[in-house]
Order: sequence, then C-alpha cells, then structure tokens
Amino acid sequence: MSAPDNLRIVLASRPTGRPGPENFRIEHAALPSVSDGQVLLRILYLSLDPYMRGRMSAVKSYAAPVEIGQVMEGGTVAEVLESRLADFKPGDIVLSHSGWQSHAVADGSRLRKLDPAAAPVTTALGVLGMPGFTAYSGLLTIGQPKPGETVVVAAASGPVGSAVGQIARLKGARAVGIAGGAEKCAFVRETFGFDAVVDHRSPDLAAELAAACPDGIDVYFENVGGKVWDAVFPLLNGFARIPVCGLVAQYNSSGEFEGPDRLPVVMRQILTKSLTLRGFIQTEFAAQRPAFQAEMARWIAEGVLKYKEDIVEGLEQAPQAFIGLLEGRNFGKLIVKA
Amino acid sequence: MSAPDNLRIVLASRPTGRPGPENFRIEHAALPSVSDGQVLLRILYLSLDPYMRGRMSAVKSYAAPVEIGQVMEGGTVAEVLESRLADFKPGDIVLSHSGWQSHAVADGSRLRKLDPAAAPVTTALGVLGMPGFTAYSGLLTIGQPKPGETVVVAAASGPVGSAVGQIARLKGARAVGIAGGAEKCAFVRETFGFDAVVDHRSPDLAAELAAACPDGIDVYFENVGGKVWDAVFPLLNGFARIPVCGLVAQYNSSGEFEGPDRLPVVMRQILTKSLTLRGFIQTEFAAQRPAFQAEMARWIAEGVLKYKEDIVEGLEQAPQAFIGLLEGRNFGKLIVKA
Repeated sequence: MSAPDNLRIVLASRPTGRPGPENFRIEHAALPSVSDGQVLLRILYLSLDPYMRGRMSAVKSYAAPVEIGQVMEGGTVAEVLESRLADFKPGDIVLSHSGWQSHAVADGSRLRKLDPAAAPVTTALGVLGMPGFTAYSGLLTIGQPKPGETVVVAAASGPVGSAVGQIARLKGARAVGIAGGAEKCAFVRETFGFDAVVDHRSPDLAAELAAACPDGIDVYFENVGGKVWDAVFPLLNGFARIPVCGLVAQYNSSGEFEGPDRLPVVMRQILTKSLTLRGFIQTEFAAQRPAFQAEMARWIAEGVLKYKEDIVEGLEQAPQAFIGLLEGRNFGKLIVKA
Repeated sequence: MSAPDNLRIVLASRPTGRPGPENFRIEHAALPSVSDGQVLLRILYLSLDPYMRGRMSAVKSYAAPVEIGQVMEGGTVAEVLESRLADFKPGDIVLSHSGWQSHAVADGSRLRKLDPAAAPVTTALGVLGMPGFTAYSGLLTIGQPKPGETVVVAAASGPVGSAVGQIARLKGARAVGIAGGAEKCAFVRETFGFDAVVDHRSPDLAAELAAACPDGIDVYFENVGGKVWDAVFPLLNGFARIPVCGLVAQYNSSGEFEGPDRLPVVMRQILTKSLTLRGFIQTEFAAQRPAFQAEMARWIAEGVLKYKEDIVEGLEQAPQAFIGLLEGRNFGKLIVKA
C-alpha cells in the first residue's frame, strides 16, 4: 500500500430537521503520524447508527456534540497498519471508535482485539456490539420479560429490534414486531421468528397492533417514538415496563410540538397502571458485557439468534446511507465497507 | 347509646371537573344487622385523601369507581359495637375501610386492631397508615435516595409530602419541599425540618426552585403534577428517579389538554438523562409493611419524624372538607371526626 491519504467525512454544518448531503463534507488529509503508545489503523467497516443524529446537533445530550469541521463520530472495525503499542501488531483486527474516516491513530484505551475466526468481524458493530448490547441490557435489566408476557418492539428488522424480539422469545415471552413494508415484515416473522409483526405503514396500525397483542403489552422496548408510541400506549398492561433507548421518529424535529398536550394522559396512565419508563444508554450496564458476549455468541453459534447486515460499499456513501437510515431505508444493521 | 341510625354520604352524581356539594348526598338509614363472622362498627375517624377523586369518575383506574348511590369509599378508624367474630370484642378500636358513614358492618378481612396506648389512633390513617406507607415505600423502593442527593416533593405540608422529605433526610439526602402559602412553607421548614422550601404560589416558582436546588434534583416524588412538574423537570439530574403516586393538579381535568405537546420533550429527556418514571400504589409493596410500621413508629417515638393532622368535626362536613383538600385548603393530614 503506497502512501494513501486519509479520507475524512466531517460535519460541515448542523442540520435543522432532517440532515442532507450538504451537512457533510469529504476531505482528504495526510495520514496521521503515530506516537509511542499508539497504533495506526486502516478502517475496514464503519457502523452507522441513529444516535449519530444527536451528535450533529449542538444540544447537549448524554454525549458532547461533534464540532463543525470535526470528523463524524462512529464505531469502526479496523486493521492495525503500524503499532507502537504493546499487545498490538500489524494485521490485528480491532474494534475502535475512529469515526467516518479511512485511517486513524488510537491509543489502547478504546481498542478491543477481534478474532476473525470466532465470528465475522462486522458482528462487533451489530449483534455482538453496541446495538446487540443495547437490546440485551435494556430488555433484560429494565424490560425484565417473563414467560408468557408480550414484548413489543419497533424497527424490528433493525439490529436492536431484531435482537430484542429474539431475546424475548429465548426468555419465554411472546415477541411482536413493528416494521416498515411487506418485505421487512416477512423477514421479521420468518427469519427472526417473531410471533407476530405489524406494518407501521398500515392505515390502521393501532387496530392491527391490538389484534396482534390480544393479552396487551407487558414490555414496550421504545426505540422510535412517534405514531408507534400512540398505537402501543393504550395496550400497555398494568406494571408494563418501557425501556427507552431511542426516539428516531422525533430526532429530526425541533422547537415546539403541536397540541393537544399528550403528557397529562401519559402521566395519568403511568400512575393508574403503575408503568415504568426508563431511559438508558448501554454504557451504564458495562458490568453485564461479559455475560452478553458469552450468551449472544452462544445463541448465534446455536443458530437460535439471527442477524441481518446491510453493507454499503465505499466511505463516500456514508452520508447518503445515514440519511436513509433515519428514514428506515436500510434493511438490517447498516455498515459501510470502507 | 339508643338505636342510632346510620348516617351515610353517598355519591349523588359524577363530577365533571371539580366536585361540588351537589355530587354528594347525605342519607339516613337503619343500622346494618350483623351476621356471624362480622362486627358492627361505629366510625370514629374518616380519612379524606386525594385518590377519592378518582373513585368519583366512571373511568377505570387501579380500582373500581364508586357507583352512583353508593357510600363514598375511605379508610376509617372505628370502635367495635358488637362482635360475632372471634378476636374482636366490643370496645376494640380497629382500622377499617368503611367509607363515609357513621356505622358499618365488616368481616375480618380488612380489619386491623389498633392499640390506642401505642400511638394516637388517628395516626393509622396518616403517618402510620396509607399516606405514610405511600411515602415510605415509593421513596425508598423507587426513589432510592442516596446520601447527599436532592429530593423534591410537593404538597410538602401534607401527610405524604411531609413524610417523604423527612424520610429523605433520615437517609442522608437533602429535602426540598414545595407548599402553598407562607404559613405552610414555614411549617415545612421549621417543624418538618426540610432543608429548603418553595411557595408554589410564587410568580417565579421555576427560578426559586432552581435556587433551592443548586445541585439539581435526583429524586422527584410526584404527587401533584401541573406547574410543579414544569418547574422540576428542567432541574432533573442524570439517572433521576420519579416515583409517581398522584397528580392532584389534573384530577379535575378531563378531555383533551391544550398544546403544545410536552410529551416529545419529556421523552427526549427520559432518554438523554436516563430518567426513571414509575407509577405506583402502595398496595404493591405490602411485603414492606412490617418494616415500615416498625421504622416509622421508632422515628416518631424518637421525635425525629413529625406529623400534622387537620381534623374536621362532623361527618356532614366531609364533602366540603374533601372539596377543600383538592384545592389545598387542608393543612396536614385531613381527617373527619365522625
């Protein structure tokens, strides 16, 4: 490989509403130089995830925003090109958090070595990575599904939703998915094995969801918000648990939301049905990661837990692919092959 | 006592909005007759509590509504006049759930004998009864205050709020109360010993609450809703816990609430701050009652936990007293001496 440059995708401007290509800029820079205690990485795969929309806004969230002109943030699988760090050598494949670029230097603090023989390395960005752990930790710690209970999750063909439903079933619960379009719905039912699936594009989502949940809903794993919430909410049973890990449907909104004010009705139901709403980000459950890695890897090896990846070729495609992700155009875990 | 009749206050009609005297009717009936396995009770004290507003509406809540023409529901302290039940004899003082009337029969299932020597019997309706247990179980199980954290509660001069703040302090947390008017605020600070108190009638509740909570809010014990919620919400810290036991401010509302829609903003904060909202009713924590009885009785005996009762004379006054309760006109635990 002869002196490649570093291709970087930076935040060009902050979007108001849905992001467009103009919010990103592709830059070429010199390869970063490596100091003692660092490695030089070539990015193989970049993970695209809905949380990145939050990083594009200046609003303080649980993490700091990406600054204008900075490389967009993101999880990556990379190959070590050069190492001045004990324990890493050229050719090693690692999980890193190097962002939307072709090369990066990193110290060891956020690197984890991957074993390509154990599982396809892309799974470290999906079912065995952050999205899978989000599903596992949120569902089991907050949702606590019991055998026979009904668990509902939206974006059910995506990496979090598909894992939520399958783990729910492995724990003896009934899984009902919500997905967009006939193809995704069929996949959720047939490949992921959900007990029922409802198309959120249906003109009568609420009635179809009610029919799919004859015993009500005990756990709603909230990752989208919007009209799915409105369909789910009346069906919640007493003592239902609602882990909240995402609100994709409202990520592109800002300012005031039109009335009526739904909060008093929601608060009343929280009170009278003894509901639990709990926002979370998987990092708080770090202590469970070893159990997650072991259990998920076993389920995958046994063939009882499936996953689907949607791999886009070429780092330059990342902005368009990410814009599509926010509109549900991906089908499975969205990954860019750099 | 020569053949008294039974004075009963029944639900005459369902209120729309705030209840008025016309929603209640006073009736005189014959004393009920006692069968085997029952006692005849003379009601000494009737507890009036905000939850009763819910029972006046036909809407299904966690409990069935009171039917039109039925005696209003409520907790009571009563004297046994006649007993055809082992373990109870005339003169015994019991906690019962006999409702708004002067006499009642009861089987043993919801009777608990009280020891007038151990504590004033009215405390069984307040600090050592349902309101005290609501405070204790909701705060400790859901709120889980840690030393140094800030706990906020409204209706801080009432039976639930005053116990919440004092228990929070006994557990090492900082208690900030919200109450209505200078007299109640002074009592909350001086007698109940809260660290700070804010008057909800202040034109700048939000700024005063912010000043009283320089380190933000870790636990908000929600028993009122409305404008207090709006003042509290921006001050919540990451991982804050919100036990929801009441929403007095919206009990008299029905139909749609005017916009803007606050729900998306609340959901976003639940997500980004990893908040916990949890509705509850104390009955679900029944297993903790013995610990509660022991610990609260000890705190009262040691003088480290205070309570205040607001006793109204005459069962006929119950409707007006209850209407006043929903408007915050009581000062302390509202009890009717029958």
